[in-house]
Amino acid sequence: MARVTTAERRRELGQQFRVDSVRMSAAAKSGHPTSAMSAADLLAVLVDGYLRYDFTEPKSPANDRLVFSKGHASTLVYAIYRAAGVVTEAELLDYRKLGSPLEGHPTPVLPWVDVATGSLGQGLPIGVGMALAGKYLERLGSRVWVLCGDSEMAEGSMWEAFEHAAHFELDNLTAIIDVNRLGQRGETMVGWDVDVHAERARAFGWHAVIVDGHDVDAVDAAFAEAVGTTGKPTVIVARTLKGRGVAAVEDRNGFHGKLLDDPDAAIVELGGLRDVRVEVAKPAARAERETAGAALELPRYDIGSRVATRKAYGDALAALGAARTDVVVLDGEVSNSTFAELFAKAHPERYFEMYIAEQQMVAAAVGLQAVGWRPFVSTFAAFFSRAYDFVRMAAVSRATFSLCGSHAGVSIGEDGPSQMGLEDIAAFRAIHGSTVLHPCDANQTARLVAEMAETAGISYLRTLRPATPVLYGPDEAFEIGGSRTLRSSDEDEVALIGAGITVHEALKAADLLAEERIVARVIDLYSIKPLDSETLLAAANATHGRIVTIEDHWPEGGLGDAVLAALADTEEPPRVVSLAVREMPSSGTPAELLAAAGIDAEHIAAAARRLVRTPTGRIST
Amino acid sequence: MARVTTAERRRELGQQFRVDSVRMSAAAKSGHPTSAMSAADLLAVLVDGYLRYDFTEPKSPANDRLVFSKGHASTLVYAIYRAAGVVTEAELLDYRKLGSPLEGHPTPVLPWVDVATGSLGQGLPIGVGMALAGKYLERLGSRVWVLCGDSEMAEGSMWEAFEHAAHFELDNLTAIIDVNRLGQRGETMVGWDVDVHAERARAFGWHAVIVDGHDVDAVDAAFAEAVGTTGKPTVIVARTLKGRGVAAVEDRNGFHGKLLDDPDAAIVELGGLRDVRVEVAKPAARAERETAGAALELPRYDIGSRVATRKAYGDALAALGAARTDVVVLDGEVSNSTFAELFAKAHPERYFEMYIAEQQMVAAAVGLQAVGWRPFVSTFAAFFSRAYDFVRMAAVSRATFSLCGSHAGVSIGEDGPSQMGLEDIAAFRAIHGSTVLHPCDANQTARLVAEMAETAGISYLRTLRPATPVLYGPDEAFEIGGSRTLRSSDEDEVALIGAGITVHEALKAADLLAEERIVARVIDLYSIKPLDSETLLAAANATHGRIVTIEDHWPEGGLGDAVLAALADTEEPPRVVSLAVREMPSSGTPAELLAAAGIDAEHIAAAARRLVRTPTGRIST
Repeated sequence: MARVTTAERRRELGQQFRVDSVRMSAAAKSGHPTSAMSAADLLAVLVDGYLRYDFTEPKSPANDRLVFSKGHASTLVYAIYRAAGVVTEAELLDYRKLGSPLEGHPTPVLPWVDVATGSLGQGLPIGVGMALAGKYLERLGSRVWVLCGDSEMAEGSMWEAFEHAAHFELDNLTAIIDVNRLGQRGETMVGWDVDVHAERARAFGWHAVIVDGHDVDAVDAAFAEAVGTTGKPTVIVARTLKGRGVAAVEDRNGFHGKLLDDPDAAIVELGGLRDVRVEVAKPAARAERETAGAALELPRYDIGSRVATRKAYGDALAALGAARTDVVVLDGEVSNSTFAELFAKAHPERYFEMYIAEQQMVAAAVGLQAVGWRPFVSTFAAFFSRAYDFVRMAAVSRATFSLCGSHAGVSIGEDGPSQMGLEDIAAFRAIHGSTVLHPCDANQTARLVAEMAETAGISYLRTLRPATPVLYGPDEAFEIGGSRTLRSSDEDEVALIGAGITVHEALKAADLLAEERIVARVIDLYSIKPLDSETLLAAANATHGRIVTIEDHWPEGGLGDAVLAALADTEEPPRVVSLAVREMPSSGTPAELLAAAGIDAEHIAAAARRLVRTPTGRIST
Repeated sequence: MARVTTAERRRELGQQFRVDSVRMSAAAKSGHPTSAMSAADLLAVLVDGYLRYDFTEPKSPANDRLVFSKGHASTLVYAIYRAAGVVTEAELLDYRKLGSPLEGHPTPVLPWVDVATGSLGQGLPIGVGMALAGKYLERLGSRVWVLCGDSEMAEGSMWEAFEHAAHFELDNLTAIIDVNRLGQRGETMVGWDVDVHAERARAFGWHAVIVDGHDVDAVDAAFAEAVGTTGKPTVIVARTLKGRGVAAVEDRNGFHGKLLDDPDAAIVELGGLRDVRVEVAKPAARAERETAGAALELPRYDIGSRVATRKAYGDALAALGAARTDVVVLDGEVSNSTFAELFAKAHPERYFEMYIAEQQMVAAAVGLQAVGWRPFVSTFAAFFSRAYDFVRMAAVSRATFSLCGSHAGVSIGEDGPSQMGLEDIAAFRAIHGSTVLHPCDANQTARLVAEMAETAGISYLRTLRPATPVLYGPDEAFEIGGSRTLRSSDEDEVALIGAGITVHEALKAADLLAEERIVARVIDLYSIKPLDSETLLAAANATHGRIVTIEDHWPEGGLGDAVLAALADTEEPPRVVSLAVREMPSSGTPAELLAAAGIDAEHIAAAARRLVRTPTGRIST
């Protein structure tokens, strides 16, 4: 038998990827085989000739990273894994079945998938985060390869990635655009005008190579050019045919996410089943990373002094950075407001300025954590809404990182509603596996920053613009899932439950009520998810089921809803009055806006008064 | 006195805008005067020479539109209004005070502000929507002018706007980039390299003009060039100085969003107070728009047939388009999944394909509604999370439009969690003034589409991928804020409350329970916000306070939380068991995934059984 050339082997591998995509989709009765078929040759060359990856050490920072930004081409991912010998034939054909790790779109349920994709426009910005780690933190010579669809080039997040990758001179990053010209329902805006894709990339500072995506030699040369390019990232703009290799679907509209009518005939047309194996090259030996620094010395604030919780975040973060050398910080051009600048000054080598590009910022955090770093990310609470899809997908990625949203609520004052985070608690509670924290004082904030660093999943810290009185001593511990009862007695008639700014208002309200001989319990529910249901239940029972919740947030999905949910399935659910921001705020002073929203001390006292004077279902405990 | 030249008048006007910005901020003790000062000359030329706007008819479609994408330059907006004679001196100096319509960032509390800005990167994509209306729907020759900051060019949404504006050949749109090079905490990635901004814009298909933003004659020529350019939009890349005109702050970092130390001296340096008036040119007379079409003939489906609610959305939308000629539809390249394609086929002239650019899609809807159109916007429920900040800001804009998110929940099946909307109800409930609807059958869906069209604010319709049995007749009316009790009797022991797919599971569960002689009430809570608290309260009382809520959504912020909130402040709140998706789903069949999530009929019946056998606080009604 004649020796096969490299090109022949790669062409065969590409055909195998197509065949496997066709049969996987046929077995699953769903999937996106035509989207895999356009990129099959590109990936055959990549895994056969360029990717350096140790399948036995998927977490090694020395590995290259391969991200499918077009996650719907999942059959191609799994076909590669079969060729690499890490997924069996039987596993392959369980694609998309309940219990199979070969899900419809790739997720880290498989050890070789770093991040979940499937929401378009996310893989490249995540790759930027991985490349930042590789170039600036690891320095082991690893590369990041991202397969992009041409349809997703319409997502602005892709252009955030293009700008940032060039700004950071990420010559270890290669984007491959699979220009098959056809989206789900028709042609893209650019079509096959590959020059347009290349010119845009160049205008954003990238090196661009145009190539026939089915010419394995040309693709090889393009990858070599990418590897040889320094000082800037490279994009390979590959002209391809969707459904390549099967005449019934090749370059034909209407076959996105559709099965082939006759998969057996298609497999014959593609040359039949194959069992080509690929030896993916391994990187140099894994380097162990040392993450322990000095002992953690959190900042300390005097009780009674006034310190903004956002300032305490910055102070604590700088301290944490000294104690843990794996902590990295990103901020969206507001580090002098969020106080992330304190970390930037203390640890500039682990600080990344992400400018006003919140999607890229969160995506970079996802990429950094995927390769073992521990990101903290900050901007105004309101502006995390810009990156909500990225946070949502990060949960599917089983990602671990922390977010800090500053300037929450009407207490910011004059800047007005566009700058007020009023939906952030609802949004972050609805992220799977999330932790949502809202401290009211500086010492508590510092402790919670340290706790977050030890918490798996996506954790969110909500901080305040104004300085607030320090209530707790610097040695008091605050665990996630806890609360603090600031006032309580055996005669409590009503419980006032707040977090952040409303804790201070609740304390004032308790004083007002005391003047009328109404005894109020005050609870600082700084951990909104998970939450201290035991303390809440005790408060409900002690007060004969009379609770007032107060939040500087819309009424929906926030602290009030969280309290209700915690007490819903109990024998005697309490009567709960929820004070929250119910009308669109305007500009004004913080005090004026708290009053206008009905969440200041006077309004809390009024609500408590009404509740105490209204019968509840349970008169006696 | 010598006659002043046009250039002199405009320079004076620019100085007046600076002076007014300085004194407004000084009076308010906050604001962003230096950001207004860089753009003052640009706007002086625009309002004096190019803008055509009738301040007495702000809603006229013949008007040009002026959008401050850099909304923090609000003092410049209000300074223009003073020069135009629509805001008084006294009103000007009430800037940022409680009750003043001159808010920290512009909002439509003022009749001449079409949309709220202040979250960067939104004004230009909104302007694209206005320009789509002007070019394709109004055809009155109006133009859209958008002032952009250079920092916000890092937002991907700006590049979505660049791509879409060129794709739609919006030669009635002019973007003005105020390249003052300084962001909040330092220089932008591009700095003063205005060529980079221009080259990127050209690569995206725009005509670009580079200009000195303080040379009023050059600016005039640039605007003339913009007006004279056909077939493509124009961007004016204006090199400017932040804080221009006051040496203490001019082109100096650290003065973003800061007051001037000595505003009186600054005003002197700027040449003192002025009272230059500008006569903004008026457009041609307003044309009245006729919006009434044929009588609405909604689609009709047979009870017992199986139809996906997403299909009913498309059918109803096509019908609505015939009845109301102001209805416009946008979709994010999934119109064959959301069924928006049925509208596109029926009314192609009012359908805009927005490709995979959800931010631009929602922004375009905001722009279209601002000029009097009635947009319906669709994509997968999950992917609206991409545009969450735009929806948030649309509420600040007091916008009215409808969103339809398809493929909600685990019931989509094999595609897996990246495609499942599981946080959408929480996210949309937390939008101020929103309406959240989740129908379970096709006739109900069609009726609700018609209701949404008559509903102010942001309304959201959640539709399902799988076909579901038609439960209701085509003549049944469904109002927003209502519900349907599908099973009830005097002996109900527990109420099962669902929406969408879980209504069908609840009905099956009621059958299972009936076999055990447990009588269950079944409520279809299709209107999740606002919600029918009267029916819920009656159900709580009838069942001795035993409620099971079931939702194909995360437990946080969804239907269960909404039910709890509605019954929280009542004498005897019920005991509520909330069934929801609590673990990260995978691929699988819809039935398998509903079972795995614990929200299918078997799990509902089990929860109801437990509740009926558990004591509640109230044993008798």
